[in-house]
Amino acid sequence: MIERGIPFAGRTEVKVLEMEPGYVKMMMPLGPNSNHVGTMYAGALFTLAELPGGAIFLTTFDASRFYPLIKGMDIKFVKPAATDITVEVRLDADEALRIQEKANEFGKADYGWECELKDANSQVVCISSNRYQLRSIKPTRA
Amino acid sequence: MIERGIPFAGRTEVKVLEMEPGYVKMMMPLGPNSNHVGTMYAGALFTLAELPGGAIFLTTFDASRFYPLIKGMDIKFVKPAATDITVEVRLDADEALRIQEKANEFGKADYGWECELKDANSQVVCISSNRYQLRSIKPTRA
Repeated sequence: MIERGIPFAGRTEVKVLEMEPGYVKMMMPLGPNSNHVGTMYAGALFTLAELPGGAIFLTTFDASRFYPLIKGMDIKFVKPAATDITVEVRLDADEALRIQEKANEFGKADYGWECELKDANSQVVCISSNRYQLRSIKPTRA
Repeated sequence: MIERGIPFAGRTEVKVLEMEPGYVKMMMPLGPNSNHVGTMYAGALFTLAELPGGAIFLTTFDASRFYPLIKGMDIKFVKPAATDITVEVRLDADEALRIQEKANEFGKADYGWECELKDANSQVVCISSNRYQLRSIKPTRA
C-alpha cells in the first residue's frame, strides 16, 4: 500500500515489520538511503518518523468517517545512523476514541506523539515530535 | 553531486536552479513525489527544505577546514503542495565568517535559518526551521 500510494516512500524500500490496531513497527534500510559519509540521509530518517502516521490512521481510526492531515514535525538528530533504523508507534484505543469523538463534534481534532528512531544496537538516533489533525468527512457541526 | 552523494535525493529528481556563495535556489518536482491524493509527500518537502544546508555549506564555508552536522528541523505544513515546489536560502557572508571563526576557536558553532517552501503561485506551503552545527576538522582548542 505504501509503494502504491506514495512512490517516494516505496523507493526507500522501507518495510512494515508489525502492524495492528494502535501499533506499528517499521524499518528503514541503510543501503538505499545512505549519504556521502555512509550514514542514513536525514530525509530517510524523517520519512521513517512520518510514515507511521498513515499506518496508525488506517489501523486505528475509521477511514470511512475521518481523514488525517500532517501539521508539522520537529525532528532532532541525536547521533549518526549507521545501521538499518526502526521506529515503533503506539496510540492507545481510548485516546483514539477521544480524538475521533472530538473530530466528530468539532470537525477536527489535533493529535500527535513523540517517537524514537533506533539503530541495530538500540541506540536512539533521532527523536521526532509529530503533529497531526484528524478531520471529519461529515462533521456534526463544523 | 547530489545524485552521486545522496542517491535518496537523486531519486526525487530535485534540481538546483541557482547556486552561488551564500545563496541557493532548488526545485522539487511534484511528479515523482506525489502521494495518494496527488499532492507532494511530506518527506519530499522535508528533503527540499534540508538539501540547501549542504549547498550553502559547499559554496559558503571552507570545506577543507570544516564540516556540517544537522542538529534538527522543525517543519510546519501550511497548505497542500499541488505543484512543483521551490526553496531559496541565503546566508550572509559576514554571518558565515562569524560562524567559521567561532568554529575555529571552539571546535564547533551552531547556526541555522528559517526557510519557506513555495508553490508555482508563490503561496507558502511549508515553513522550516533548520538547525546545523559547523565543526572544525582541526580546532585551535576543542
